[in-house]
Amino acid sequence: MEMIRVIKSSDEEKIASLLNNRIDTQAEVAQRVASIMQEVREQGDKALCFFARRFDKASLEPTSLKVTPEEIEAAYQQVDPEILASLRLAKQRIENFHQKQLTRSWFQPDPEGSVLGQLITPLDRVGIYVPGGTASYPSSVLMNAIPAKVAGVTQIVMVTPPMNDGKINPYTLVAAAEAEVDDIYKVGGAQAVAALAYGTETIAPVDKITGPGNIYVTLAKRMVYGVVGIDMLAGPSEVLVVADGTAKPDCAAADMLSQAEHDPMASAILLTHDTALAEAVSMELERQLAELPRQEIARQSLSNHSAIILTESIDESLQWANRFAPEHLELLLNEPVKYLGKVKHAGAVFLGHYSPEPVGDYLAGPNHVLPTGGTARFYSPLNVDTFMKKTSVIGFSEESLQKLGPDIIRLAEVEGLQAHANAVKVRLGK
Amino acid sequence: MEMIRVIKSSDEEKIASLLNNRIDTQAEVAQRVASIMQEVREQGDKALCFFARRFDKASLEPTSLKVTPEEIEAAYQQVDPEILASLRLAKQRIENFHQKQLTRSWFQPDPEGSVLGQLITPLDRVGIYVPGGTASYPSSVLMNAIPAKVAGVTQIVMVTPPMNDGKINPYTLVAAAEAEVDDIYKVGGAQAVAALAYGTETIAPVDKITGPGNIYVTLAKRMVYGVVGIDMLAGPSEVLVVADGTAKPDCAAADMLSQAEHDPMASAILLTHDTALAEAVSMELERQLAELPRQEIARQSLSNHSAIILTESIDESLQWANRFAPEHLELLLNEPVKYLGKVKHAGAVFLGHYSPEPVGDYLAGPNHVLPTGGTARFYSPLNVDTFMKKTSVIGFSEESLQKLGPDIIRLAEVEGLQAHANAVKVRLGK
Repeated sequence: MEMIRVIKSSDEEKIASLLNNRIDTQAEVAQRVASIMQEVREQGDKALCFFARRFDKASLEPTSLKVTPEEIEAAYQQVDPEILASLRLAKQRIENFHQKQLTRSWFQPDPEGSVLGQLITPLDRVGIYVPGGTASYPSSVLMNAIPAKVAGVTQIVMVTPPMNDGKINPYTLVAAAEAEVDDIYKVGGAQAVAALAYGTETIAPVDKITGPGNIYVTLAKRMVYGVVGIDMLAGPSEVLVVADGTAKPDCAAADMLSQAEHDPMASAILLTHDTALAEAVSMELERQLAELPRQEIARQSLSNHSAIILTESIDESLQWANRFAPEHLELLLNEPVKYLGKVKHAGAVFLGHYSPEPVGDYLAGPNHVLPTGGTARFYSPLNVDTFMKKTSVIGFSEESLQKLGPDIIRLAEVEGLQAHANAVKVRLGK
Repeated sequence: MEMIRVIKSSDEEKIASLLNNRIDTQAEVAQRVASIMQEVREQGDKALCFFARRFDKASLEPTSLKVTPEEIEAAYQQVDPEILASLRLAKQRIENFHQKQLTRSWFQPDPEGSVLGQLITPLDRVGIYVPGGTASYPSSVLMNAIPAKVAGVTQIVMVTPPMNDGKINPYTLVAAAEAEVDDIYKVGGAQAVAALAYGTETIAPVDKITGPGNIYVTLAKRMVYGVVGIDMLAGPSEVLVVADGTAKPDCAAADMLSQAEHDPMASAILLTHDTALAEAVSMELERQLAELPRQEIARQSLSNHSAIILTESIDESLQWANRFAPEHLELLLNEPVKYLGKVKHAGAVFLGHYSPEPVGDYLAGPNHVLPTGGTARFYSPLNVDTFMKKTSVIGFSEESLQKLGPDIIRLAEVEGLQAHANAVKVRLGK
């Protein structure tokens, strides 16, 4: 059995089966998520400790849910100073990029004495979700917390599942301290989302929840959408590589594997018109896979959710890329900038032979929390705006109301809203 | 029985009952919405015609779901030219305001030959929902379509429920034509949302759905969130008036009634430290209400979801206003601008005695689709960004990768992601 399928682009049906690798909302899982969340609403901290024992095998009391300054101090003693330096470099670069996203409030006065404007202000209190347990994702801490900090959010609260000794990985803690997260709680899964949305004795409710998690977290976010804001609903990760003959097979294969190792549901797709490259990449995938610690995960991803698609041209490859609207789009092309204008939908675009996707995961600067499963058609990467909100400002003068009042009255009356018209009439003495 | 409650601000419990006038998600209604949507997914146009007959009492065939150029031509013949002129004035002012919201793509090169950037591009295809049936809301057409047009959306599709003769109100049609909506379909309710999200034989699926509707529409939007983008989940409309002794009672009362006439669930709240004003407004409400065509609706709103709250000072009134995070916040104050910096959460702020809320509904310029029920803590008014998306761009040079590669490798390895590290190593010959 071939590890990865090779499909001709004319075989639309086979490609269609790869499109829409959407979030799987099995009713059964949704039911379990709903009942976990109900428990948290009813039992508060007690439920959080119960689920920590059940899902994380961690023994916690309500009083130990919140990470203490001593625990953070201890984490700093444990981390490798070289890795801490890399985290600080990443922080600086991510901060620089996100600062460029800041938009300002504006006002526009007119000669009649009126003013119109738009206030852009930070959210009060946000909750960021960081996956944890056995793994550690300090990069996810930075990617969630830094844009919130740049936006000026008053309070940033982080939740992450504990290890089975009831602790949090030291790199995660250090990243949170570096990013100036205000409070950290040892709680993960749907129960963490419920705690952030509704509050418990220990965790005050937030205004918005961001960050990707597993299917439990994603379904929980969907359920609280509207009670609080959320960033997006994210599914399995994916990379789509568009390559021409100048691409090196070992690079293309390595990039595909860097996605495939995330998750058996992850997807890695190569689109190329170069059949020799396609063949070489297929061989390289086999060769590199054999060396990977996470090869079982990567193999499932490659066999079930990945493919090499043979097209007729770069343009055709890009047309397919737009239909996929991938989370990560690599252009392993000789002249990538020339083709950037043809990219319609993607979370992030990686230009040329020296921009492998992990560059963006860690420290290029842009966010690694990106829309998946074709949702780049309407979602944006996590960004500073995610943590801000707009308020319109309308200050009419008497002169403006005199001038425009009759039009307002006419429009209100044609909509059958007499009280709307009256609010103008009473001021104009009509 | 008093028509409107007068509450002292010290009576926190009574005020709490007014807070969180959130979207009511009765399980029974949600169940009906889900089954309507399932019908549309399975039966397509046939289901749309079935529900048009059932809910709108309109007899339509699949071939008559789409509004024809002849119907639009006929609508232009029917409308009052003076009202058309007012609509055009509104369009111009709304367009001017929203053009100021446009943000641009940007790029940042560095001396090592790398480039980082953010593309900001319009959505491909959006669906706007406009309430209809017996009423007509041409203003809602403008408020939804114009920001989409300014954003540069390729295709704007509008859905609105038909009248029982199978037609659409001529003002709605003319507004759509003026705003350059591409296609108009005679379909409303949850079935319209399903058609926009999943598509039918006649209606191609869209990338995002915007615009407020009744509880069916709102629950349907919640259900398709993630399959498509949505603007927000909106509940009953509300105004919160903060007034000092310079406010005129007839103006404050008229503004409260302009909100109350929308919906029995609508909410109109006056916050003032001036007891004489409070009493005068209460009397004015009675007097003006008696004259209103929609007095039954307004009376329910005032009795059940509204109040006059007596505070100690303007500052205290504003503290309460921030807790309400209202859709519309009027500052009927002598020096409103002085207090603008104390407003933390509101959809739109109306400054001073000549800015009644209907000014913003029709033609001031800012959008009238605003967050309700306290969601101004995290949602923004409908705006040009609602119709755009961001894409990050990362173009690393060989030199940059040489320089930063070791840090990327370290961070990938501490997260246990060897294939991520390999994507860098393979390029650096490590």
